[in-house]
Amino acid sequence: MSFVMKCLGINENGNLTIGGCDLKEIAEAYGTPAYIMDEDEIRANCRIYTQSIKDHYDGKGLVLYASKALSCKYIYQIMKEEGMGVDVVSGGELYTALEAGFPNEKIYFHGNNKTVEEIAFALSKGVGRIVVDNEQELSLINQLSGESGITTKVLFRIKPGIDAHTHSFIQTGQIDSKFGVALENGEAEQIMKTAHQMPNIEVVGVHCHIGSQIFELAPFELAAEKMMNFIADMNDRYRIHIHELNLGGGFGIKYVEEDRPVNYDRYIQAVSRVVKRVAKERNIALPSILMEPGRSIVAPAGLTLYTVGTIKNIPGIRTYVSVDGGMGDNPRHIMYGSEYEAALVENPNGEKTNTVTVAGKCCESGDILIRDIKLPEIHSGDLLAVLSTGAYNYSMASNYNRIPRPPVVMIQNGLPKLAVKRETYEDLVRNDV
Amino acid sequence: MSFVMKCLGINENGNLTIGGCDLKEIAEAYGTPAYIMDEDEIRANCRIYTQSIKDHYDGKGLVLYASKALSCKYIYQIMKEEGMGVDVVSGGELYTALEAGFPNEKIYFHGNNKTVEEIAFALSKGVGRIVVDNEQELSLINQLSGESGITTKVLFRIKPGIDAHTHSFIQTGQIDSKFGVALENGEAEQIMKTAHQMPNIEVVGVHCHIGSQIFELAPFELAAEKMMNFIADMNDRYRIHIHELNLGGGFGIKYVEEDRPVNYDRYIQAVSRVVKRVAKERNIALPSILMEPGRSIVAPAGLTLYTVGTIKNIPGIRTYVSVDGGMGDNPRHIMYGSEYEAALVENPNGEKTNTVTVAGKCCESGDILIRDIKLPEIHSGDLLAVLSTGAYNYSMASNYNRIPRPPVVMIQNGLPKLAVKRETYEDLVRNDV
Repeated sequence: MSFVMKCLGINENGNLTIGGCDLKEIAEAYGTPAYIMDEDEIRANCRIYTQSIKDHYDGKGLVLYASKALSCKYIYQIMKEEGMGVDVVSGGELYTALEAGFPNEKIYFHGNNKTVEEIAFALSKGVGRIVVDNEQELSLINQLSGESGITTKVLFRIKPGIDAHTHSFIQTGQIDSKFGVALENGEAEQIMKTAHQMPNIEVVGVHCHIGSQIFELAPFELAAEKMMNFIADMNDRYRIHIHELNLGGGFGIKYVEEDRPVNYDRYIQAVSRVVKRVAKERNIALPSILMEPGRSIVAPAGLTLYTVGTIKNIPGIRTYVSVDGGMGDNPRHIMYGSEYEAALVENPNGEKTNTVTVAGKCCESGDILIRDIKLPEIHSGDLLAVLSTGAYNYSMASNYNRIPRPPVVMIQNGLPKLAVKRETYEDLVRNDV
Repeated sequence: MSFVMKCLGINENGNLTIGGCDLKEIAEAYGTPAYIMDEDEIRANCRIYTQSIKDHYDGKGLVLYASKALSCKYIYQIMKEEGMGVDVVSGGELYTALEAGFPNEKIYFHGNNKTVEEIAFALSKGVGRIVVDNEQELSLINQLSGESGITTKVLFRIKPGIDAHTHSFIQTGQIDSKFGVALENGEAEQIMKTAHQMPNIEVVGVHCHIGSQIFELAPFELAAEKMMNFIADMNDRYRIHIHELNLGGGFGIKYVEEDRPVNYDRYIQAVSRVVKRVAKERNIALPSILMEPGRSIVAPAGLTLYTVGTIKNIPGIRTYVSVDGGMGDNPRHIMYGSEYEAALVENPNGEKTNTVTVAGKCCESGDILIRDIKLPEIHSGDLLAVLSTGAYNYSMASNYNRIPRPPVVMIQNGLPKLAVKRETYEDLVRNDV
């Protein structure tokens, strides 16, 4: 029996394990629902990327964890220890990273609409780079930097005009996007020229992001080629020396059996080859390569543990299996129609004889986690693990229906540790007047 | 100039007002983004329902505010003062209502998958009624009630098999639903018989909910007719005397100009007529009528106040106007494709010359609030009010991208009062280990 998550196993009691820990014991210790993550798997995923830059590009680069996938103090501590950089997309993520002791110079600050307060906060904390979205923001950064007597290192978010095949909701990189400046209509060139003249701005790099859940190498190679030629153009035309090429994230992960992710180290291998070729052709220095994996680092390392409650068999129509969580802790099905695999903790290998729909406990018909999944016979009280929920679940969780958010439990060396505590009813009313 | 929200106006400075308060002044006092609600409008909406039961049904009934639409201590205090009941759908909503001092006997507890802990909590607090979803839950309530030496008053959630025309995600009442027991296949009859024999259960009522955002009276009349005949059948066949008929909610509100909600008092008028007729035909006592409006009470009383940041004109394609909130405070567009109207606070009456897309600040392409809306000329720094956000916005809000959730400000007698405080960065990491 194989699972979509590599870090799962089955122990001598026949129970499902994560990182070697019995999930039944974890449920007893931490309750359900709960997010359970294998810290060793998270670290291993980081190392695939960092090692690959060493192997294929002489270590000339930095892997940034895209922390919107999962942001909490604990995860920034892991990233610090793994020698990663991080990207943050808000003052709140930046605050969390700093609270965790993450080194400021390895923080990249993103966002299509950073507020004045957020930019001022980032500058006051000395973040490593700001990834500038537009001219308005650029002026503001130049002005605020001047007022503080500092020079700010920036990259520019560029739309390379590549349309990677993925769900339309999570597609970026095209010209019809709220993010960045376009290559094809001269916006990108214009903002580089403007920035190059500014006294308090140091142009160090360019950034692009071509989509999410991408399962091919070709669009990344194409993006690298376009961006490298742009870097060479800027060098040739204006003597602007760009030494950081940030190719963003978007690496697909295995949510269901049919998904076929590329081995992550092959991305860097493929992209390195293109970068080196164009550098030679255009006679420019090799830039550092930056990448921003988020989902691919944490999603395959996490699952959500639920207890089954109501089971409702509607003859000839459907069997609803309701669990003690739902769209509050995982809104991805109702938002994107996302698909997940699941397994019964105490019968992970059983014959999958039943087709059921896993529903949540929210007062809403759309509160579905998995539609029409095959599972072994299932009973009220069973523990159900929904797999590959390590990204965009805790980070997108709400208190809809005033349901407290579940804890995040990390497994390291076979031992569970609490990373985020379960919310209490008291937490829910804390800000109520 | 008219707005989709009745409680809006324009003052002598030409600024948009809510409940007579200048929204520019509110923005200065409370910051943006912020949910602003007219308390007087909320109370007026409650009174439409309560008065209508007096006018058309001799006051024999109770209006329950469906608190999942907006749950915080302040709103339960309003409901208490207005003589309303409330329905809650989780232990967290129940806790909040009780913390607000809401009388326990007027609380109705719903849910398709109440946990053992939630049921025990509800029984220990003496909630007025439990709306039972299924046989498994019924047994549990009977058992726990027996252990506590109490008798629990219950209603049953019944699927009347009516398919009200609305968005499929928010459609209920059909047989293919995770909620309740079906009328058409005998499940409803079976659970009534079972409950009637149980020592610690008192069957007092039946409940149905036929959908959301419904703009017609006919489905409500049909539901009332079906449910009344079921009540009569139970009386005739088993001498089960049902004296509470809860017809749920689902009353449509005006999100955009094209929406044509029925006046809410006409629902009760129409339904009362059907109930009285069937009671006479079938020779049964008139039941109390209960209704569960949520959205129709709070949605039209609230707006979200944003500050415009980045404006990105992509020639020939689209203009993106980014605000300082987004899918974190209003996930309804990305979830359901919901539509909203908006107005510029300092130019509410201006000629609508520009078609723009209002985007949020989240790092996600799908983070859109309104697609292709006509607005007057708009500038960075402008205050934008997105209208009719009083329901399912604060209650569904997340911290996605670690953005703190906005405050809820209530306007009463022309004065603003804080109902829920703005989250801080400190709040975001409170449960982080």
